Amino acid sequence: MAGHTTDHILYYWEDLLPGSERDLGTITPTREEIIAFASQFDPQPFHLDDAAAKASVFGSLCASGWHTCAMAMRLMVTNFLHQSSSLGSPGLENLQWKKPVLPNDTLHLKHKIIDSRPMRSKPDVGLVRTEWHMHNQHGDLVLHMEGWSMFRRRHPASNNASSD
Amino acid sequence: MAGHTTDHILYYWEDLLPGSERDLGTITPTREEIIAFASQFDPQPFHLDDAAAKASVFGSLCASGWHTCAMAMRLMVTNFLHQSSSLGSPGLENLQWKKPVLPNDTLHLKHKIIDSRPMRSKPDVGLVRTEWHMHNQHGDLVLHMEGWSMFRRRHPASNNASSD
Repeated sequence: MAGHTTDHILYYWEDLLPGSERDLGTITPTREEIIAFASQFDPQPFHLDDAAAKASVFGSLCASGWHTCAMAMRLMVTNFLHQSSSLGSPGLENLQWKKPVLPNDTLHLKHKIIDSRPMRSKPDVGLVRTEWHMHNQHGDLVLHMEGWSMFRRRHPASNNASSD
Repeated sequence: MAGHTTDHILYYWEDLLPGSERDLGTITPTREEIIAFASQFDPQPFHLDDAAAKASVFGSLCASGWHTCAMAMRLMVTNFLHQSSSLGSPGLENLQWKKPVLPNDTLHLKHKIIDSRPMRSKPDVGLVRTEWHMHNQHGDLVLHMEGWSMFRRRHPASNNASSD
């Protein structure tokens, strides 16, 4: 990881093989955390107030979708990116909030590498396409994300004909 | 908005016409806010520490991409959704972090309605496809998002042949 020694890097681009899956652990937001995030970033009534939430399309107080993404990122960083040669991501091509996240739900994140290719313009960098799935304790999918990320290569290409 | 009286609703589905644009205001994250968000949700060194950030691909301390999204959401809620009949969003089809967000950047959000259609399964709901662009004070695009959202209709359809 940039700014760190490389001693802790377990996963370079070459180690992230298409088809491989990883368990990235669980996180359990409290009611207070859900309200604190929403108060700052997404103050819609169904994220803040029980009565308003009960009368809303969601039926009960639930987390901001951006809070759900932020919790997934926390698991990703702690349980994967910190051990990798990650160089960040240009974005996501698909982000779906499938079910509301409720207070004290236990959210379980997994990711799967679905594609990989060298980066032509940077011989020491490779691209990886990843799918993330986060399920709650009932087995319901709550979040799906998909996109490309950049990782430093263990062995830079000397001559690389692939496209970016 | 669900759970509120409808007195404050200025924008129903019918009012969100393709081609219309809205200025959703500005937000300026401090260094302390950037570090606080990253400490909780995205503790990568380039979001937390100046020396690590300087040695990273970013070159200086910058906000988590998820913090940038959360700030855009805050502007969206305060300056638009609170005055609308919003029923939430199933997700985004495109999310791009185009440039790093630095401490004390002034971020300016605009959105544009690019498509609109009724929702067949729910005669009182319509769908709107929106593009969001957030620029910094130098005019650089920092965030682009695109996706569908649901809004309650002012006049429910009596007979609607459009698809979902």
